[in-house]
Amino acid sequence: MGKSQLRLILSDSRLARLGDAYVNFVFSLGRSRALQEPQGIKVSDRMLAEALKRSGLRQELPKRTTRQDCANAVEALLVYGYLNKLVTLEEAVNHIASKSDSPVDAFAELVKSVVKKIEDGKSNPP
Amino acid sequence: MGKSQLRLILSDSRLARLGDAYVNFVFSLGRSRALQEPQGIKVSDRMLAEALKRSGLRQELPKRTTRQDCANAVEALLVYGYLNKLVTLEEAVNHIASKSDSPVDAFAELVKSVVKKIEDGKSNPP
Repeated sequence: MGKSQLRLILSDSRLARLGDAYVNFVFSLGRSRALQEPQGIKVSDRMLAEALKRSGLRQELPKRTTRQDCANAVEALLVYGYLNKLVTLEEAVNHIASKSDSPVDAFAELVKSVVKKIEDGKSNPP
Repeated sequence: MGKSQLRLILSDSRLARLGDAYVNFVFSLGRSRALQEPQGIKVSDRMLAEALKRSGLRQELPKRTTRQDCANAVEALLVYGYLNKLVTLEEAVNHIASKSDSPVDAFAELVKSVVKKIEDGKSNPP
């Protein structure tokens, strides 16, 4: 997958809508496991936009991209990874649960993990 | 499981918070499959409260229970079914996708399915 295809995923606003529901569920379930008590959390755009920066992927989007669209990019990419079985729901939830002291880093690592699997898929076609 | 334990689940407001994230993701993914296009949908309290009525479980809650708390009861019960592996995410999503013309009925059937599995578990202890 080339850079342009990755950018297509990051800017897919329809995918981001489903991704919003995915990210909130993954985060809520991960936090529930970490705290051993059910949690329901709406993940903020601020957290996801910061995760995009730390993942190194912010530079793939235009400089003037809003914080909301940076968050949308993370939501779109993570649910793309789920739909294409690159990172399972269990893996994502366990990752959030294990890094519950640093959710931004946890999301940044999930982003990097999906990008790496996309790139691995490119270099090792089935 | 007795009636009183089922009522405990239905009125578990903490479980309902996680259930809210679960229900929105299941519904969004199910609709995405049915329409073959990503969707992000916040399921309304009205829809879930109506599903509770159609499932026959509304009578387990006090008469003056608000619509919001009826919706919470559905959210708590469905995520209880998920956490306890009574109905998998795939099963729930496929059910929503296959009955996309009647989402209230789809949710009512999911509710009945979880209750039945709880009752089966009672009559067939491991």
